[in-house]
Amino acid sequence: MLRVFVTGGTFDKTYDEIHGRLSFGDTHVPEMLRLGRSRVPLTVETLLMIDSLEMTGADRARIVARCAECEERQIVVTHGTDTMVETARALAEGVSGKTVVLTGAMIPYAFGSSDGLFNLGSALSFAQVLPPGVYIAMNGQCFAWDRVRKNTTLGVFESR
Amino acid sequence: MLRVFVTGGTFDKTYDEIHGRLSFGDTHVPEMLRLGRSRVPLTVETLLMIDSLEMTGADRARIVARCAECEERQIVVTHGTDTMVETARALAEGVSGKTVVLTGAMIPYAFGSSDGLFNLGSALSFAQVLPPGVYIAMNGQCFAWDRVRKNTTLGVFESR
Amino acid sequence: MLRVFVTGGTFDKTYDEIHGRLSFGDTHVPEMLRLGRSRVPLTVETLLMIDSLEMTGADRARIVARCAECEERQIVVTHGTDTMVETARALAEGVSGKTVVLTGAMIPYAFGSSDGLFNLGSALSFAQVLPPGVYIAMNGQCFAWDRVRKNTTLGVFESR
Amino acid sequence: MLRVFVTGGTFDKTYDEIHGRLSFGDTHVPEMLRLGRSRVPLTVETLLMIDSLEMTGADRARIVARCAECEERQIVVTHGTDTMVETARALAEGVSGKTVVLTGAMIPYAFGSSDGLFNLGSALSFAQVLPPGVYIAMNGQCFAWDRVRKNTTLGVFESR
Repeated sequence: MLRVFVTGGTFDKTYDEIHGRLSFGDTHVPEMLRLGRSRVPLTVETLLMIDSLEMTGADRARIVARCAECEERQIVVTHGTDTMVETARALAEGVSGKTVVLTGAMIPYAFGSSDGLFNLGSALSFAQVLPPGVYIAMNGQCFAWDRVRKNTTLGVFESR
Repeated sequence: MLRVFVTGGTFDKTYDEIHGRLSFGDTHVPEMLRLGRSRVPLTVETLLMIDSLEMTGADRARIVARCAECEERQIVVTHGTDTMVETARALAEGVSGKTVVLTGAMIPYAFGSSDGLFNLGSALSFAQVLPPGVYIAMNGQCFAWDRVRKNTTLGVFESR
Repeated sequence: MLRVFVTGGTFDKTYDEIHGRLSFGDTHVPEMLRLGRSRVPLTVETLLMIDSLEMTGADRARIVARCAECEERQIVVTHGTDTMVETARALAEGVSGKTVVLTGAMIPYAFGSSDGLFNLGSALSFAQVLPPGVYIAMNGQCFAWDRVRKNTTLGVFESR
Repeated sequence: MLRVFVTGGTFDKTYDEIHGRLSFGDTHVPEMLRLGRSRVPLTVETLLMIDSLEMTGADRARIVARCAECEERQIVVTHGTDTMVETARALAEGVSGKTVVLTGAMIPYAFGSSDGLFNLGSALSFAQVLPPGVYIAMNGQCFAWDRVRKNTTLGVFESR
């Protein structure tokens, strides 16, 4: 069994047509799993729906606590890309004996040309086969939490 | 380095508007890799663009030969789902010391609600971390080639 | 009030993933009207869901009868492009005092890059402002029923 | 011949993935016309690419001047929905003897579930058949410029 914790980020941004701006609604993860015809036994749990630049220490603590407490030993966390590495660090400190893979998207899934579906398939796959530890899965690759950074100029993740 | 061998299947089917039927054109894999913002170092090579029900022994032999000969030790093969297991068997017999992951799609990528992008992200990820062997990646899961079958009633892959 | 009669055609084709071929299910017209945020007061009625090459004289007679009988004086008929002109002729003979606009699509709406939504917006608009008569609305243009033909080589409609 | 003047608005908004916000790039109108397989003889001219809330009197004067000067007698103007009625008023005062139809979208075309393509088909159709005057085409309907308002609560256009 696997658990997917949703925290928001560009991955789940949507467009609020009444106010003409980006916003958050319900997560698109269940819809994406149906689209991908996923048969991975899993539970989706929404913890937050925020831009990761807005994440506080309390928010991160909650993510860490839920990852440590939940029954599952394989976890995917959807997260904004801006502070994904920071949350990965907190998870590495607070969770042991589990495989935790963070992923996100550069383009909202609600848009037609999003990397979200590709990244979700990627993260779910890494989570099923990697040994316990905390990882980031972006751009089709996976990185140990302490060997990756976001290149904010190019908008990609790379080894460091 | 990883190599993606394209053989066609529903994954790459497109719609021929002049004749009003499904057909094959160029592979969509490069476009899907751009959409997924993949940074996996890889080469895409089209071997065939056919429905896997049309695959002959000679076709399979060519796929096996290219997988064995190419430099890369991590390979993804896009393939029609109907005879994916058959090709997996041929690969298990003819290729050793490499990680080969076959994947496909139930809905053409050219359609809006396709599992193709999800499966491509999934297969590329499994190919990077699984030990040498031949696998099928479908529905977010991976199966050893000799422990999977296609459930043609439900249109999904399951363990056997 | 306007009425939309659905008869099928490429407009409404969908992909049957279990059998790997094109097929018909329920019409996509209500979904397309929601997507277009249409506020045109109208009723959608499905008469047929077939390829227009399969249309019989009895099928055409039914379309003509429903157009003549219904309360509405503004009608859109979604139809396969192959015999759209033939049905337009039957309508010109059997319906008077009403504005009837036929439209269809070269790419199924179920595909991501379809002309269906554009054509539906176009046909609904022509139907609201053209004087009584039978017209074909394709490629953003409208043609009187007896001054148009389908160019099957290019897959477009043109004046004759 | 018809001319399409592009001024921006939600219609053409796109997502800037590096900065994580909505922005404007090149217009999507040519791409949308290709998707719709439009064969309407026309020219696309970009005048502005802004949110209509940012439009100044000088901006409006430029739109009016171009509409009055251009050769075409049938014109479509893509525009943000927030101040579309205001620009329509300016056009009614400054342009005569031409059919000018303004349209926009509630959801950016760049998103998968946009009304943009439907509205473009609609506006192009109204522009080809309506008598000279200034109109707004939204939600599948057309309104004379002085008999419409935007219902900002529902995000639709209605008669007044």
